This record gives sequence, structure tokens and C-alpha cells, in this order.
Amino acid sequence: MDVTVVGSCMTDLVSYAPRQPKPGETIHGTNFQIGFGGKGANQCVMAAKLGAKTAMVTKVGDDSFGKNYIQNFKDHNINIDHVGVTADASTGVAPITVSDDGQNSIVIVAGANMLLSEQDVAAAEHLIMTSKVILCQLEIPVQSTLTALNIAKKRGVKSIFNPAPAQEGLPSELYSDCDIFCANESEAEILTGEKVSSIEDAKAAALTLLNKGCNSVVLTLGELGSVYVSQTEQEPQVVPCPKVIPVDTTGAGDAFLGALAYYLALYPKMTVLEALTRSSRLASISVQAKGTQTSFPSRKQLPSDLFQ
Amino acid sequence: MDVTVVGSCMTDLVSYAPRQPKPGETIHGTNFQIGFGGKGANQCVMAAKLGAKTAMVTKVGDDSFGKNYIQNFKDHNINIDHVGVTADASTGVAPITVSDDGQNSIVIVAGANMLLSEQDVAAAEHLIMTSKVILCQLEIPVQSTLTALNIAKKRGVKSIFNPAPAQEGLPSELYSDCDIFCANESEAEILTGEKVSSIEDAKAAALTLLNKGCNSVVLTLGELGSVYVSQTEQEPQVVPCPKVIPVDTTGAGDAFLGALAYYLALYPKMTVLEALTRSSRLASISVQAKGTQTSFPSRKQLPSDLFQ
Repeated sequence: MDVTVVGSCMTDLVSYAPRQPKPGETIHGTNFQIGFGGKGANQCVMAAKLGAKTAMVTKVGDDSFGKNYIQNFKDHNINIDHVGVTADASTGVAPITVSDDGQNSIVIVAGANMLLSEQDVAAAEHLIMTSKVILCQLEIPVQSTLTALNIAKKRGVKSIFNPAPAQEGLPSELYSDCDIFCANESEAEILTGEKVSSIEDAKAAALTLLNKGCNSVVLTLGELGSVYVSQTEQEPQVVPCPKVIPVDTTGAGDAFLGALAYYLALYPKMTVLEALTRSSRLASISVQAKGTQTSFPSRKQLPSDLFQ
Repeated sequence: MDVTVVGSCMTDLVSYAPRQPKPGETIHGTNFQIGFGGKGANQCVMAAKLGAKTAMVTKVGDDSFGKNYIQNFKDHNINIDHVGVTADASTGVAPITVSDDGQNSIVIVAGANMLLSEQDVAAAEHLIMTSKVILCQLEIPVQSTLTALNIAKKRGVKSIFNPAPAQEGLPSELYSDCDIFCANESEAEILTGEKVSSIEDAKAAALTLLNKGCNSVVLTLGELGSVYVSQTEQEPQVVPCPKVIPVDTTGAGDAFLGALAYYLALYPKMTVLEALTRSSRLASISVQAKGTQTSFPSRKQLPSDLFQ
């Protein structure tokens, strides 16, 4: 396997309405769409669309959303040997109301994702140890993510950890057990307690995270690009992002992470800075189309210089 | 057919969360459930569960929610000859966030329901004219509801019209073409412009509605029961409701209307006041269980005096 993701999958339930309803209120929306989401699955689909051999370690409910999600994995040639099905919770959902002014209100019900146990992850040890890169987030129990990173470290598998959604008081091993710790600006703010509103802030926050024990830190800044720092190169490097006019930025961070995992797995001799540059380009392409996984470009749609 | 409903079906997407999200905010909910809803389908299912031969005239999208809803109709032995499937809109959905304080915020996306056209209803003329009772609401285009009531009137079929959700400026034929005009207190307020917060208010509002051309008016008042008035009995009658401790009042009005249609169809010699009394009893039973259609009692669970 090139890339194995140990993480979440969620069904996005997107309602478009003139405005957000007030508590207790019923309003009429104009449109409704079901989408495939969840940070783990998004990142896996991006790596798969670029051509990586991918596997997903996740859990769905025994319901139609779960069945549809498993089909979505199959449609992207993602290995589902470690996609569990539970009758004890519904497939994760993210009902989203998008109002005309562009504001999103989201109620995430993680459901089956929170039943992806340490035992489930341990059962995937062989898969993890035979992967080139593993990729984890925080939409599953923290201990399950930690188990995955522990296995990867023990087995010498390269790992990327995306601490999203961010929460305070994470175990210190989550910082030290991954090869690349990749957060966005708001996640970095929660984890460091420092305001991150400029590239200079980001450099400082990246160093703060590095000092928590990370081997290397990538701090993404949306259209401003990203900042990279590592134990061996402690001078923060800025990786710019191509300027584009975004149509829909949903999932851009996941596109970036899936691409980064792809490059680390398939181009082991590529520098991290080059991998970050190309991942930024891919994320900037994804924001020019609507949707989440549907906005991720496939290899055949992309310029060949991204694969040289 | 005993009861034909020309109306809506919606998939309820219910998220339970500690509170309602603010605009732009992402919060975590605790539980998620999919349910069958929509006023039309709810009322039809109630009539079916009591033992009426029922049919539904409605439209769903060409999607998994639509397929599941058609299966739900089949599971209740509801005739689906006039359940259309369209590729031009999604099945109606009602994403609902229920917060710990019991407040519901709802964004209804009517979708395929709004594509149930006058032509679709006209195509069901034979079904309507061979039914004992037809039952309509306002979760489909007003003109489609009007077409159904026109057919029923022309063909001498008894009809109940539930002006829900209420909207101002309804065509006057909607008042005059139905046999029973059945609204709840908030719908009556919108339609009359009069405050309805007591039984005396309700009597006055029922007379106002009667004077708009209704043949008879039922105004439901939740646990206070209902008020009935007709062109032939212009002195408003109060029908009390059994006192119960409610668990979940969702769909109680639909249970009442489905039961009323059942009694009018199957017990043609029963007085309207007796039918209203029994329908109130059935609605009060439904509020003692969670859910919407799942809270509606089936005939075999009910005391035999309801069917004498």
C-alpha cells in the first residue's frame, strides 16, 4: 500500500437556505445535496485520485449511508479490508446549512467514527506496517489515532498527523510519534494558544509546535501557502501557494494532506519543500471546483510536471 | 380506496446536539436519526396503520431517500401507483437540529414535492374519484392541492384540507372546495390574522374561517382538544382531548388528521364530533411514544372501542 489513512468518514448533508434558522424556527431551503466527506476519507480519496494505492481504516454504521460510503471507497479503488461496520451507531454525518451569505453552520455527529477502537487499529497492524505512508486526524478517538502512530513509528513507516479538529491537552506522543505534524492556522492557535494571523505568526507557532516534540511541522495558511520547519532545519521555510479565484474552499486542506501523503509515498527522494509546493498547487486546483471529494482533481486531468 | 392522500413526503434528518449552532459555527452533536416524515405521508401512514386501504399521490427524487420512502409506503401497504420519481430534484428532506433544551430548528428543502404538478394530480383522477376520502395539505404546489380538491368536489368525494404550512393569500376555492378545513392554532392565526391562545379565541377563529366559505372547520388546539363548526351547526362545539404526559409531540397533528380521514372513510354514519373525539384519543396515544410515523399506533395495539 502507498498510503493508508486511519480516520473518519462522514456523509455531508448540505442544505442551502436564504439564512440560518433561529433556535425553534422552521425555514424553507432551496436545495439539498448529499456528499462524501470526513477528513480521513477526503484525504484518502485525494491520494487515490492522484494514483496512490490506498487503504482506509475506518468504521461506518449498518445503514444506507454506510453502504453508500463503502461503494464510494470501491469506486476510488480504496482498499476496504479494514472498513468496519457497526450496528451500535449510525454512519458519521455532517448536516450543513449554507446560507446565501456563504456562512456554514455544521452539526457533526461522528457516530460510528467514535467506535473505531484501538483494537480495530491494532487489527490493521499488518496493513499499516506494509504501507509507505500513514495519515491520521482527530475525527476518531484520540487513543485510536495514537495507536496508529505508535505502530507506524515502531515499524518505521512514515506518518503524517493532522490534528483536526484541534483539541487542547493532546497526549505528547501525538506530537513526537509522527514524522510530519500538519495543522492549519486555527488548529495551531488552539494547540499553541498563540494568535496566527500572518506568516510571521505562523513561523513562531510552527516553532512552538516543534518544541512540543514534533519531528517536523507544516502549518498551512490557506491562500498564503504554508510554513515548514523541522528538527534538522529549524529556520522556518515559507512555501507560497498559487493565486487563484476560489469557487469553494471546502476540503482544500484535505486535498493538500492527501497530496502530501501521495508525494511522500511515491517520490521518496523528493524534498519536503518540493512536495509541499506541489501539494499547494493541487489544493489550489481543488478550490476552483464545487464540492469536496468531487472537486479533487484526478491524475489524468493534471499537468504532467506535477508527476515528474 | 378508503383514503387517498395527495401530498408530501420528506426524509427527516434529525441531529441531537447540546445547542443550536451559531451562523458559521461547527459543533458536535450526540446522535443522528433518519425518519420518514412529511405531512402528507405521515397522515397516510396513520390512516394505513388503523387499517384503511390507502394510496399516496406524491413525488420523490431519483435517489436513495426516494427508494427508501417508496419501500416505506410498501411496508405500510400504501398504494404507490401515483408515486412519481423525478431526476430533476432530490427527495424532500427536513434536516432538524434538536437541542438539549428541546428546541427544534428545521430547514425544509421540499425538492421533488414541489414538482408534483397539476398534471400529476389530474393523472390520478380515477384514483381520487374511487376513494372514499381524500386528504390534502400545502407541502406541494398550491395549484396541485387545488386540483385534487376540485376533482374530489366534482366527483362527490369527501375531502379534508389541512392548510399546513399555512400561508397568507390562499385561493378562496381552497376554503370552499373541501368538506372539512382542519387547521391548528398557529395556522389559524396566520389565515385569520386573529390571535388564538384560548378555546374562546379558537371558536372565534373557526367562525372567521367558516365565513371564508368553508363547509366545516376543525381547529385543533393540542392538549386542549379541538373546536368544530359547520355551515349547518354554526354554534362551535368543543371536543376535549385526553390528558396525557407527552414524550414527543412531533406528528401529533398528522396522527389526528390521518385518524379523522380513517373514520370518515370507514364509519360514514359516525358523527363528526365522535370521529373528532376518537381522532384526539389516537393523537394523544401517539404523543406518548418517540418519533413520528413510528409513534403512530397500529390497530392491533389499540382498544377495541375505538373501532366499534
